[in-house]
Amino acid sequence: MKLVTEQMEQYLSGGAWIRKIFEQGLELKKRYGEEAVCDFSLGNPDLPPPAVVGECLAELAGQADRPFAFGYMPNPGYPAVRAALAEHLSAEQGVAVTAADLLLTCGAAGGINVFFRAVLTPGDEVVCPSPYFVEYGFYAANHGATLVPAPTRPDTFDLDIAALEAAITPRTRVVMINSPNNPTGQVYGRETLMELAAMLTRQSAGRDRPIYLLADEPYRFLAYDGVAVPSVLPLYPYSLVIGSFSKNLSLPGERIGFVVVSPDMPGRERLVAGMVFANRIMGFVNAPAVGQALLLRALGHEVDRTVYERRRAAMARVLTEAGYEFFMPRGAFYFFPKSPDPDEVAFVERLAAERVLAVPGRGFGLPGYFRLAFCVDEAVIDRSEPGFARAIAG
Amino acid sequence: MKLVTEQMEQYLSGGAWIRKIFEQGLELKKRYGEEAVCDFSLGNPDLPPPAVVGECLAELAGQADRPFAFGYMPNPGYPAVRAALAEHLSAEQGVAVTAADLLLTCGAAGGINVFFRAVLTPGDEVVCPSPYFVEYGFYAANHGATLVPAPTRPDTFDLDIAALEAAITPRTRVVMINSPNNPTGQVYGRETLMELAAMLTRQSAGRDRPIYLLADEPYRFLAYDGVAVPSVLPLYPYSLVIGSFSKNLSLPGERIGFVVVSPDMPGRERLVAGMVFANRIMGFVNAPAVGQALLLRALGHEVDRTVYERRRAAMARVLTEAGYEFFMPRGAFYFFPKSPDPDEVAFVERLAAERVLAVPGRGFGLPGYFRLAFCVDEAVIDRSEPGFARAIAG
Repeated sequence: MKLVTEQMEQYLSGGAWIRKIFEQGLELKKRYGEEAVCDFSLGNPDLPPPAVVGECLAELAGQADRPFAFGYMPNPGYPAVRAALAEHLSAEQGVAVTAADLLLTCGAAGGINVFFRAVLTPGDEVVCPSPYFVEYGFYAANHGATLVPAPTRPDTFDLDIAALEAAITPRTRVVMINSPNNPTGQVYGRETLMELAAMLTRQSAGRDRPIYLLADEPYRFLAYDGVAVPSVLPLYPYSLVIGSFSKNLSLPGERIGFVVVSPDMPGRERLVAGMVFANRIMGFVNAPAVGQALLLRALGHEVDRTVYERRRAAMARVLTEAGYEFFMPRGAFYFFPKSPDPDEVAFVERLAAERVLAVPGRGFGLPGYFRLAFCVDEAVIDRSEPGFARAIAG
Repeated sequence: MKLVTEQMEQYLSGGAWIRKIFEQGLELKKRYGEEAVCDFSLGNPDLPPPAVVGECLAELAGQADRPFAFGYMPNPGYPAVRAALAEHLSAEQGVAVTAADLLLTCGAAGGINVFFRAVLTPGDEVVCPSPYFVEYGFYAANHGATLVPAPTRPDTFDLDIAALEAAITPRTRVVMINSPNNPTGQVYGRETLMELAAMLTRQSAGRDRPIYLLADEPYRFLAYDGVAVPSVLPLYPYSLVIGSFSKNLSLPGERIGFVVVSPDMPGRERLVAGMVFANRIMGFVNAPAVGQALLLRALGHEVDRTVYERRRAAMARVLTEAGYEFFMPRGAFYFFPKSPDPDEVAFVERLAAERVLAVPGRGFGLPGYFRLAFCVDEAVIDRSEPGFARAIAG
């Protein structure tokens, strides 16, 4: 008997690279011990949440015996949380947004799906620079749409506006970017984003449906060396930003994120209403109550990002000394080095034989590279150097 | 410019009865004062959560400074929570289930959508006895499927197995029931469920896809007068139960629920794997971390249900004295009386003129009735009697 759909059968049989590496890692750790494996496979924030999280939970504990303490709320979130977030985002994004321009969502992943549910029709296309976070393809498919990857510039992974424009068709409904980027660590500059906005304005002209620009920004807080992360909201009226507090507050399990639309979007109330409705009918209903309460207290706080800075420096040193070619990440917590072997799957196997775990680039739509996540102790990075050196020596 | 899809436009323009009544209620409360309005429109649990919830939050507050305190976890939930829930459900449902047979979800609504994502193909049909919780139709539509309502028995709203069978077609993928029922308060007996199981076994024979039986049970804890709520899991191999802790722990805002499959389902690992995958790709990722931690401590605890018992008695007295015809609810916190005027929308307007708020039956697919939720103080119920009396005399 067929228990799941054909599509789901294919998904379940398909190659989920991150999971494969994860299972391989468990096996290696079992065999050689936890300490003997340098696991750079998972982007799982390992820093403790800032102190304000515990303080807020203690406060909530004292109020938990009240009626409606964790009751239903309006689908877009607690009004006080929306208002505080609007103020926070107005400063961060450099445009004045109000509570009516945003909704709280179950993480950024929930936010992307809610947006897609409101705007995508089966057959639509979502254009995305490659490499990209592999979940994007599934999110588009949930709504009968297709992800269309477009190449980025060689070596820097910066946006290639001409390549993005070439990927646009009459079915294109969304162009989505992710900056600071997973897996490359690139941060798109203001000039580049202005070019992108100009291209989208040109391409949207004469259409009865705008091409949306969606910026997925879970790593916004984590840019290095004073690099600015420019906002798309002031640059293009049909733009949206999706964010989360998984990384900057180390709260990925509690699922708390948001969607905010550009205040320059004509008639944006309808889009927000559609997303709020989608939040309800997709079964999210509302972002988790405790997560929202935490957010209200924790806005403006963050994990100690100097830890990530030191790890980035350590990883760059290890890779350089071992002789790898790589783009120095300007944000997020990933390196995406070039594979010394054009077959990066074979090379990742060689790394695994040295008990160093990485994810092949094809897991992000770009073979020939591999991803390293530095959500691990600096000591693990230091310890990985001989393994990296032996793997490249072949 | 078209900002949302045609379907979403229709949804947004359509009649959401509960919301209309809610807004009318706000207006009335503003004009006459909170105390002057008897609002029976919302099924929003108003009892405080049990004390264990606050205790658990205090405990979590003390551990919030640890790495991964609220980190990513396996998509089906924390292993310890799944194991504890399996033990709890084995006792409650009367069949031995293991952690591998269930996953934690973002409430029951998230659970239903995750199940639908794994099994429904565009064009499929979901059969459901009427009246029904109006969200079911949207949940089916999210996956390109259609909800097909089938009538229940007059007066008692009990299952009409022949009517359900008549609604089944080659595209039927799921029959879903909700017991204790929203909006009727009916609880389906064991004999009836056995008949349903026999019918589904007959109808599934020869198909390459089984017809699933889905039991949505958010009100399982709330049956009155010693009425038993029989489980479907031992009765039909292709059955699933979806539950939530929104009502029994008064935690609807934190979004914590589950899906469990019958241990008699051949090859059920594939269905669970499909739902776990759907949980990930729909953007839920996992049920909220704090909610799961609360659940681990709070399993077996519940709100003071004698409060609901007293309110049910008070509401029955008020309706009887005012001369309404109604089925005495055997579970959940709703009455679904017959409208004295065949046009129940007109009658609900008359009630609103008396400052008594109810929801028209057509909001649940059954005109000629109206729904009263008794998630309000007993004093509000007592106070409503003259209004009910005047409206029926009207």
